[in-house]
Amino acid sequence: MSSLQAVLDQIEKDSQPALDRLFEFLRIESISTDPAYASQCVDAADWLVKDMQSFGVKAQRHDTPGHPMVTGHSGAEGANLLFYGHYDVQPVDPLELWNNPPFEPLVETTASGDVIRARGAADDKGQLMTFIEACRAWHTVHGQLPANITFLFEGEEESGSPSLVPFLKQHADQLQADLALVCDTGMWDANTPAICTMLRGLLGEELTITAADKDLHSGMYGGPAQNPIRVLTTILAGLHDPNSRVTIPGFYDGVHPLPEQIATQWKGLGFKADEFLGGVDLSVLAGEKDYSALEQLWSRPTCEINGIVGGYTGEGFKTVLPSKASAKVSFRLVGDQDPHLIRKNFRDYVQQHLPADCTVDYEDHGASPGTVLPLEDPAFEKSRMALGEEWENDAVYAGCGGSIPIVGYFQEYLGMDSLLVGFGLDDDQIHSPNEKYSLKSFQKGIRSWARVLDSLAT
Amino acid sequence: MSSLQAVLDQIEKDSQPALDRLFEFLRIESISTDPAYASQCVDAADWLVKDMQSFGVKAQRHDTPGHPMVTGHSGAEGANLLFYGHYDVQPVDPLELWNNPPFEPLVETTASGDVIRARGAADDKGQLMTFIEACRAWHTVHGQLPANITFLFEGEEESGSPSLVPFLKQHADQLQADLALVCDTGMWDANTPAICTMLRGLLGEELTITAADKDLHSGMYGGPAQNPIRVLTTILAGLHDPNSRVTIPGFYDGVHPLPEQIATQWKGLGFKADEFLGGVDLSVLAGEKDYSALEQLWSRPTCEINGIVGGYTGEGFKTVLPSKASAKVSFRLVGDQDPHLIRKNFRDYVQQHLPADCTVDYEDHGASPGTVLPLEDPAFEKSRMALGEEWENDAVYAGCGGSIPIVGYFQEYLGMDSLLVGFGLDDDQIHSPNEKYSLKSFQKGIRSWARVLDSLAT
Repeated sequence: MSSLQAVLDQIEKDSQPALDRLFEFLRIESISTDPAYASQCVDAADWLVKDMQSFGVKAQRHDTPGHPMVTGHSGAEGANLLFYGHYDVQPVDPLELWNNPPFEPLVETTASGDVIRARGAADDKGQLMTFIEACRAWHTVHGQLPANITFLFEGEEESGSPSLVPFLKQHADQLQADLALVCDTGMWDANTPAICTMLRGLLGEELTITAADKDLHSGMYGGPAQNPIRVLTTILAGLHDPNSRVTIPGFYDGVHPLPEQIATQWKGLGFKADEFLGGVDLSVLAGEKDYSALEQLWSRPTCEINGIVGGYTGEGFKTVLPSKASAKVSFRLVGDQDPHLIRKNFRDYVQQHLPADCTVDYEDHGASPGTVLPLEDPAFEKSRMALGEEWENDAVYAGCGGSIPIVGYFQEYLGMDSLLVGFGLDDDQIHSPNEKYSLKSFQKGIRSWARVLDSLAT
Repeated sequence: MSSLQAVLDQIEKDSQPALDRLFEFLRIESISTDPAYASQCVDAADWLVKDMQSFGVKAQRHDTPGHPMVTGHSGAEGANLLFYGHYDVQPVDPLELWNNPPFEPLVETTASGDVIRARGAADDKGQLMTFIEACRAWHTVHGQLPANITFLFEGEEESGSPSLVPFLKQHADQLQADLALVCDTGMWDANTPAICTMLRGLLGEELTITAADKDLHSGMYGGPAQNPIRVLTTILAGLHDPNSRVTIPGFYDGVHPLPEQIATQWKGLGFKADEFLGGVDLSVLAGEKDYSALEQLWSRPTCEINGIVGGYTGEGFKTVLPSKASAKVSFRLVGDQDPHLIRKNFRDYVQQHLPADCTVDYEDHGASPGTVLPLEDPAFEKSRMALGEEWENDAVYAGCGGSIPIVGYFQEYLGMDSLLVGFGLDDDQIHSPNEKYSLKSFQKGIRSWARVLDSLAT
């Protein structure tokens, strides 16, 4: 029996305990964006430390001004690898749309197979545990890991990662590796694994417009007095032209046309935009005119309003002219778009459209550029083969519409590329109510990492 | 001593108990728009019944599908008058902006004199109590009221008055009078009383736009998927042209030019737009171009967004593409604008601007047309003289930017005009935190009603 086969057998044997461990982890309400859940974030970090120690990893919690970082190290001969994941999860509102409590995980049988239902099941607790379980099995069988592996987990991925860059700078020596492994992406489809080689960056902005110094009665002031909601909607509505192109000057600087060979590969994927949209009850592409769905999602930048609030929003009606109105706006970035320049140009645009008597305040919610990974590194092709063996189906190189800022940070601060392998599916509802992770993703994900580690170690 | 002078003396003598009674009334949290406060609305109705009974009024509570109505009757020789007020108050959010709890009234000494600080102090509990206290004093001195007076109080004025019209229809016989007296308006300034003879109507609409059938992750769907916040802001931003005119087709049908004589009278009022706006930290008229501040406020219709919400609005950031976004929109109406036609035209406008894959739902928050009252009725001039005597300053005929739908209902269902006399001031912050009512308004308001009743009764 090969050393790999013994590990795969051990994974099978340990299947139920692995699920139990994941459930324990999922029960911790580690919502990072809401300060009310700070102690639960610490609990999640401690849980990881203890779990890694149980199979010989030298793990420890590092407190930060925000939520803790967790590191672990397990020395062995062979490749130097750094594994990254995040233990924090998204908020759960609107809570009333969940069919069962978000932090009480369960396995549910659905038309497309068994799923693990809970906040964080896919993003990212379930995913990161696929790697940990692979390592545990390897350690159980061989008494050590197949490579020299460093673990890094953060608890602020869903809230802009404010502590991450300082931590990377401070611990650059200990975190150095040949390649980072990141498990926070998806499969191409339920049977086709994927390696993500192109990611969009993310720029987050919050703007608050103030007109009068207090809320006013629309009967006593309506007409003469400026309404900040009207100002805000006018500014936001102007961010796109009728073809859904972003109007901010210079926005498309650094956006390159898709290379012919990538465009051809993507066309060959047989992506069905109607099915993709139909899955969420939509039917028409809403992005930039004349681009395919995959291009809109993977290779084109966007501007989205992620939240807006102003005035009276409770039950009934209140004829108020509010003093303030605010919105959260994000930009997905690609190629060589410069996040800092775009933030500046966005603010200039807002300022130029701000009428008399209004002021604007901003909150910076982080910025990371887009990323393209080096397919010429042999680790990519080795991993693609390993994944293909587990899933009995060729793995594809894909783009990713989301942002994994860590990839840019690893490049910038540790000079290291990232191999992005994950087992999420499009319908995992990772930032929505009823988040799930396919049980098959979890189980074959563990086996996939065992195979990838084997391929990279040798 | 004239019968009036004895009443005025009694009012002076009873000044502190009158304030104590108002405070008791103000402590009742009768927020009508929020169902959580339904029992407090009943408490406020019961309080009024008991208070009126204490000076011989045959008062009773009438339960409705919403909050109760209260009526009272006190028969006497002379004019038949109906007094109207409302015991419900606005919500108190944002609570953190109040300097003291909204339902714990106190008298505060300010640069412009003593004020009663509490939610409802001006709108409308303090105002309606000026009339009740005048009647109480008259009854104490003379054993009866100076006219045949019916009292009518509702508890749904701040939430669209759904029970009012059915109640007026059902009790038309008992409510019949020669003239309605309504105390829910303001002074021209702190020393100049006013009778409001022109009111804007109000049309309330709430629209909710739905795109996808669930909240989406902007990394996984951003670009291809429609964003309902973007759709909503685009639709709302299109409601005004750059000159602040409303763009809805037919919106200005029925809006008449201001008659020359009224325009001249308003110009003579010496209204200082810069002071009016400066009081709330604004400086530039935001309404329709080429109209004065008073015209924008009293004689021109408006469209305002009173509330907007969609996506993630908590602390931090969430890269969500929400399923829904909604807004509360109101229109102030004047002249012969038809509220029902405007609602239809608004909905047609929204429908025409709705992109593919979006649906819209509406909630109707009531509609009332604008009103112009008949100055040729001698009661108006008698009341103007009586007010002038109390304040030692001529009372003025003014417009009112707000809506008092009851005036239209009294015309339509009881065939009765309304005399609108009130003692509010522009800085009362009636729908904002820290609402107040000038102590002078309360005390001279009571005396004013004693004089007005004396003038109308004889």
